[in-house]
Amino acid sequence: MAVQRFIDYVKKMEHYEEALSVIYWDMRTGAPKKGLAQRSEVIGTLSASLFDMQTSEELGELLTVLEAQKEELDYVTLRLVEEVRKNYDNNKKIPAHEYKEFVILQSKAEAVWEEAKAENNFALFLPYLEEIIAWQKKFIGYWGMKNGSPYNTLLDQYEPEMTTEILDRVFGELRTTIVSLVQKIAASSNKPDTSVLFKHFPREEQRALSLEILAQLGYDFDAGRLDESVHPFMIGLNHGDNRITTKYDEADFRSAIFGTIHECGHAMYEQNIDAKLDGLPLAQGTSMGIHESQSLFYENFVGRNEKFWEHNYERLQKYSPAQFGEVALADFLRAINMVEPSLIRIEADELTYALHIMIRYEIERDLFNGDLQAKDLPQIWNAKYEEYLGIRPETDAQGVLQDMHWSGGMFGYFPSYALGLIYAAQWKHAMDKDIPNFDDLLANGELLPIREWLSDKVHQYGALKKPFELLQAATGEGLNGHYLANYLQDKYTKLYQL
Amino acid sequence: MAVQRFIDYVKKMEHYEEALSVIYWDMRTGAPKKGLAQRSEVIGTLSASLFDMQTSEELGELLTVLEAQKEELDYVTLRLVEEVRKNYDNNKKIPAHEYKEFVILQSKAEAVWEEAKAENNFALFLPYLEEIIAWQKKFIGYWGMKNGSPYNTLLDQYEPEMTTEILDRVFGELRTTIVSLVQKIAASSNKPDTSVLFKHFPREEQRALSLEILAQLGYDFDAGRLDESVHPFMIGLNHGDNRITTKYDEADFRSAIFGTIHECGHAMYEQNIDAKLDGLPLAQGTSMGIHESQSLFYENFVGRNEKFWEHNYERLQKYSPAQFGEVALADFLRAINMVEPSLIRIEADELTYALHIMIRYEIERDLFNGDLQAKDLPQIWNAKYEEYLGIRPETDAQGVLQDMHWSGGMFGYFPSYALGLIYAAQWKHAMDKDIPNFDDLLANGELLPIREWLSDKVHQYGALKKPFELLQAATGEGLNGHYLANYLQDKYTKLYQL
Repeated sequence: MAVQRFIDYVKKMEHYEEALSVIYWDMRTGAPKKGLAQRSEVIGTLSASLFDMQTSEELGELLTVLEAQKEELDYVTLRLVEEVRKNYDNNKKIPAHEYKEFVILQSKAEAVWEEAKAENNFALFLPYLEEIIAWQKKFIGYWGMKNGSPYNTLLDQYEPEMTTEILDRVFGELRTTIVSLVQKIAASSNKPDTSVLFKHFPREEQRALSLEILAQLGYDFDAGRLDESVHPFMIGLNHGDNRITTKYDEADFRSAIFGTIHECGHAMYEQNIDAKLDGLPLAQGTSMGIHESQSLFYENFVGRNEKFWEHNYERLQKYSPAQFGEVALADFLRAINMVEPSLIRIEADELTYALHIMIRYEIERDLFNGDLQAKDLPQIWNAKYEEYLGIRPETDAQGVLQDMHWSGGMFGYFPSYALGLIYAAQWKHAMDKDIPNFDDLLANGELLPIREWLSDKVHQYGALKKPFELLQAATGEGLNGHYLANYLQDKYTKLYQL
Repeated sequence: MAVQRFIDYVKKMEHYEEALSVIYWDMRTGAPKKGLAQRSEVIGTLSASLFDMQTSEELGELLTVLEAQKEELDYVTLRLVEEVRKNYDNNKKIPAHEYKEFVILQSKAEAVWEEAKAENNFALFLPYLEEIIAWQKKFIGYWGMKNGSPYNTLLDQYEPEMTTEILDRVFGELRTTIVSLVQKIAASSNKPDTSVLFKHFPREEQRALSLEILAQLGYDFDAGRLDESVHPFMIGLNHGDNRITTKYDEADFRSAIFGTIHECGHAMYEQNIDAKLDGLPLAQGTSMGIHESQSLFYENFVGRNEKFWEHNYERLQKYSPAQFGEVALADFLRAINMVEPSLIRIEADELTYALHIMIRYEIERDLFNGDLQAKDLPQIWNAKYEEYLGIRPETDAQGVLQDMHWSGGMFGYFPSYALGLIYAAQWKHAMDKDIPNFDDLLANGELLPIREWLSDKVHQYGALKKPFELLQAATGEGLNGHYLANYLQDKYTKLYQL
């Protein structure tokens, strides 16, 4: 009885989430601008109803009842209770009026951040950033410390059970490998010619190619669609509706093609969750890092792999003959795998990307666990860029102000991006044992066994298993950066003939 | 205080309506099919919440309080109370369990209707149709008779204050004119060559032309967008978001072009409602018939007008040169204005369309006000087609089973289509006094003064004024079919040189 009431209640909350997601998708894919003001009132009304449900006494009582009879619950219900409890406490422990104050501050801080970035004026943003950090510290007080430190509480919200102890070790080792590779590449005179990347590639042809590649990867078009937006994203509306967007830049086809492959990795994760979780909050990715491991697996281990392009290069040439017709595959591969330290995270290449993340991680960790002050951020930021990447931002707009995450209070999120890379290399290492002919499959365009392996080890479980549980079951170990380090070492030594 | 609480309450209901409309639009424009099962659960949850709001004691009390202080209310609030009361009573007077039973019957009846149509088996559908009619009669008992007869109660739901007395007179006179014209045309040997209509016109070119025409008509793309769906429709999400869909048939361009113009008429109605009604249920068309008068005004009085094509024919030729390059404008105009009695309503031409509606109207009226029995429908239907259109369906699938309306209990709706034609001709007659150079404007592609006139007389009021109030203010009279009769008489006498 209580179980069914609880499940019905939880599903109803999911229905509100799904309605809000449809509206969100629509706003990002062409909703007319004059309708947006009222649309945001619609969002406000539905969100308020959802928040009432999420924090109701009724839900609290259902949780208490079920927690008292844990022994009688099946595994899915048990995990469901655990997940809902986590969100319930997260929402409920903050006094409603304080949360409201924080939401107002958030939206102000985001606006000020945008202005500060445009004007390259960190001082303008600083008081808001300080306030945001103070609130986060207060919230950590309400939530209670998880895994022994304030910053671990934040990490746990995006990556359950992740700690600074693990990250310090794994990131530290990885950094040594990457920094050394970057330095060797910088010193090498063997640079790729990248001019081929920036020639005109018509939008419609990019779209047609994207659709062909999606089909090849195993994207289910009956459970999704491809649209265009300013920033590519995947949105999981429900198990049978996981939509992708991409961005067609006619002067740089990489944003559409690699963006599509990346988002397809996210979408296939949610398309292949076990149907028994349908309609439950467990029917989603288990963490930000695991989600990112699926998108980055496809983007890097498939999409930047030479065998993938052995199969697809003729197709690419067909869609943009003037651009690629006279370029050898080997030169194309070197161009799309070019390494160059840069200041802007979202433009970084596969090798240097993790360094951008490590810098943000260290800063966040020290803000919450140590005595780093917000006012010192520009100086610390620039010093770390110089140390890890060998370049120094000339302005704060190109430095500490570049990302919007902190203006919204999203501390603890950045590590997910690098974790995605590390997990992806771990999946690849484990997959090699089961699929020794991985490269042949790519060369033949037979990508379904890869999706099936990932579905078997990761996708099907949704949020039923936590990151470390998945990792242990599939690889027999915990977080291990060596596989990524080895992969990068091998790949870039070969590509740059170091 | 009560006024503000009432307005907030009503706006919240509108937010739910809008969320449901976004979902509806999405389902009709490409939502992936595997997500639809769960999406319908989302719709169920939001609809149930909305229904609870629509029938709550709280709303009932707010209405009672405001109705007791009518003298103090401004005009907008007064009309708002009136509208909300009408819907409240409609929803509340039917016992909830009976309504639920009816909804279940509805969905069964629709499925059976589909089967019966496919199998040409009226007997299969008959028991469901009888039950649907019995429920409607029971509901009329709950609602109470409006304007003196049971069928008038149904009419009033779609067209406030409309009665059989008015319709019998106006439809009767109009029928005489149309039937006589149809007979003359049938007897004429002067038939247009319509082969030009059915040549290949690529989808993308149809879309580009549709967009150009929309811009010319005055459609605001910042408050709408054009998409594709199986059946064209317009959906008003809010004042700043009124979306159009059309259907691209590469073997018959008329469905896209005239469909787009038609839906644009609907959309411009809602785009030009006074902003002071934003967020209220008054910010929509005042009736189905008035709404249809806007779409049909543009489709027929603009889109089928020779002057419109004087301006646009070269453009059309440019988009499909092989099709239209060698065809004279005069021949094109005769082809798109071809008259031919046909069995299927939705394929009917401008002249015969109203006859299809009159047949349905007379049958509905006699079902509810007289002693016509559902079992006699096929026989009555066929006899009326023979009498009015001179052709007789050979099967019920092509006859009484062709429309889905009755399977859903939509009695009283059909007359709106013919009312739209009649109103449109009345607007045109009144407009001629203010815009004597109407034809010149069309010939020059200057269509904005036409939209402005319609906005001034109709659009701006939304549902603030009722149909007859709008009509009286703009034309100085009530419903009058003579203008439509005269227009058709003039136009088709000339086109067919009768």
